[in-house]
Amino acid sequence: MSETVSRTATKKFVNDPQQFVPEMLHGIALANPNMLRYVPEYNLIMRADAPSDDKVSIVQGSGSGHEPAHVMAVGPGMLDAACPGDVFAAPPADYVYETTKLMNSAKGVLHIINNYTGDRMAFDMGRELAEADGIKVGTVVVDDDVAVKDSTWTVGRRGVAGNFFVIKALGAASARGDDLESLVELGQRVNSVARSMGVALSSCTPPAKGTPLFELGDDEIEMGVGIHGEPGRKREKFRTANEIADEMLEAIVTDLPYESGDEVAVMVNGLGGTPISELYLLYGHVHENLEKRGIKPVRSYVGEYCTSLEMAGMSLTLVRLDDELKELLSAPAEIAARIF
Amino acid sequence: MSETVSRTATKKFVNDPQQFVPEMLHGIALANPNMLRYVPEYNLIMRADAPSDDKVSIVQGSGSGHEPAHVMAVGPGMLDAACPGDVFAAPPADYVYETTKLMNSAKGVLHIINNYTGDRMAFDMGRELAEADGIKVGTVVVDDDVAVKDSTWTVGRRGVAGNFFVIKALGAASARGDDLESLVELGQRVNSVARSMGVALSSCTPPAKGTPLFELGDDEIEMGVGIHGEPGRKREKFRTANEIADEMLEAIVTDLPYESGDEVAVMVNGLGGTPISELYLLYGHVHENLEKRGIKPVRSYVGEYCTSLEMAGMSLTLVRLDDELKELLSAPAEIAARIF
Repeated sequence: MSETVSRTATKKFVNDPQQFVPEMLHGIALANPNMLRYVPEYNLIMRADAPSDDKVSIVQGSGSGHEPAHVMAVGPGMLDAACPGDVFAAPPADYVYETTKLMNSAKGVLHIINNYTGDRMAFDMGRELAEADGIKVGTVVVDDDVAVKDSTWTVGRRGVAGNFFVIKALGAASARGDDLESLVELGQRVNSVARSMGVALSSCTPPAKGTPLFELGDDEIEMGVGIHGEPGRKREKFRTANEIADEMLEAIVTDLPYESGDEVAVMVNGLGGTPISELYLLYGHVHENLEKRGIKPVRSYVGEYCTSLEMAGMSLTLVRLDDELKELLSAPAEIAARIF
Repeated sequence: MSETVSRTATKKFVNDPQQFVPEMLHGIALANPNMLRYVPEYNLIMRADAPSDDKVSIVQGSGSGHEPAHVMAVGPGMLDAACPGDVFAAPPADYVYETTKLMNSAKGVLHIINNYTGDRMAFDMGRELAEADGIKVGTVVVDDDVAVKDSTWTVGRRGVAGNFFVIKALGAASARGDDLESLVELGQRVNSVARSMGVALSSCTPPAKGTPLFELGDDEIEMGVGIHGEPGRKREKFRTANEIADEMLEAIVTDLPYESGDEVAVMVNGLGGTPISELYLLYGHVHENLEKRGIKPVRSYVGEYCTSLEMAGMSLTLVRLDDELKELLSAPAEIAARIF
């Protein structure tokens, strides 16, 4: 298991690395001419029919490089707008401010923020500026990653793929007309029952950096890795898929904790370079591990939701469900990241 | 652009490489308990509610390693069943035969085959055995890859991601009750207006082989690569995303040819290891190139449809549309590979 191949870290489909994000956003807009609108000045991808005074506008912003999060998660039943920064960089505060103004609704604007210090600062400032204009703004912070407390760019826990469930639930609840205060409460509730952890088999290379974020030995994995390559709990020896999944699941299940009798949504999220075949292989084992614990997987999510460019690896997320969450998660939605 | 990193070709989420496909199929079934059924004896993933005498059963089989094709493309409006072989290996003829028997409908069974000699042989034999049992069988062969005529494992052109459009159209037409003869004709018609070509930035490593299928230099790409790593037209120097896309599009457009005034579906298909951000960047440029030619992209498909394990690379597919095809492609469908 120790043979290595040479691989050019910088061999990517890129023109000018500085234009990577704008060119991607331009492509998203061209691929979805009726549903989405692109505002280049603020890296903004928005629903073409937003805002509406009948619903709270749901806005997310974060670094790029995690696609489909979040620019490909804009559409009916999901986000009204996303204003990303450059790859792995928080959006500037004025992107947040201008996006909030454009999304202003009589019912208010809700900011969903993954817990990274740069994102928190940008959104705090954007919110202050918007509130000074008389815009009603609510905030939900997502911090579902159990791997570490405090990290390279985070005070507290990091926000990772559990974010998808917060977006889906809030997108559905805002579509049915829930008010801003209820949505903030709901978002906090979803985050409070969501737990995730990731593992890297390889690093990734941001286009403008041109070199890998970190180095991993041929027989090593980074257990608890962050989606920007932040160190996790420890560097471990590579093992079988089942052994890796078991260790991650144990960390997640015991954290909340999830208990026998709980119904859960299970996400096996690819970090970018891992094929979906491996993700389904992992899902099968995770499903059975949960059943042995008396925890019932009732909804499955297997694929790429929150990536780290072309990193090989995956993350697991559990969300404890109740009747309302089950209804919200199964509500209709449509986004750029789709099959048909 | 020439820095290299060491990467373990065999670092994958795998337990026993010989059990890679069965464990993946088991995971697919557990993730879709109401929609799908798994028959381990024949690597068979089938709709839980198939067959039905109200519709022709649509069956595909091929090597594994191309997921979501084809085991994750089973469901209402798409395939009724898929019986893959091992990674990059045709299904045994008896898998095809047993699958055809299980899918037997009064309206018949339709085999969709990507044009590889091993698959053709297995399906020919499976068809003969089924017909000897009195089962009505039709066949559609897909050979959309313009890269090369004849290849390592193919006489004639290879079948690649254009297959998705054949499945989608036939799935929709069979759901509305079309008979076997009409479906064979429709499938041939979709194939006749679909053209594809792929490019690899890296190789991939089948789990049971443990070593890469081929080697690529740090500044090289394989233009016209096959989805099993077959050689393409030539090994070229790595260039910008736009230059690579332009060369591929020129080969595809001039082959049919697609002409000014044509309306087309455009697919930018990731080969497994390329992030979706790069695929959308490519889509934007392809869309504009087509518009300059007077060819109108009216439906977009950006993501992973037919992969080659973790290969970094992508393929482009164009399909010339008419009113019937537009209607069939927008018909409802549901498969394991999904977001929500």
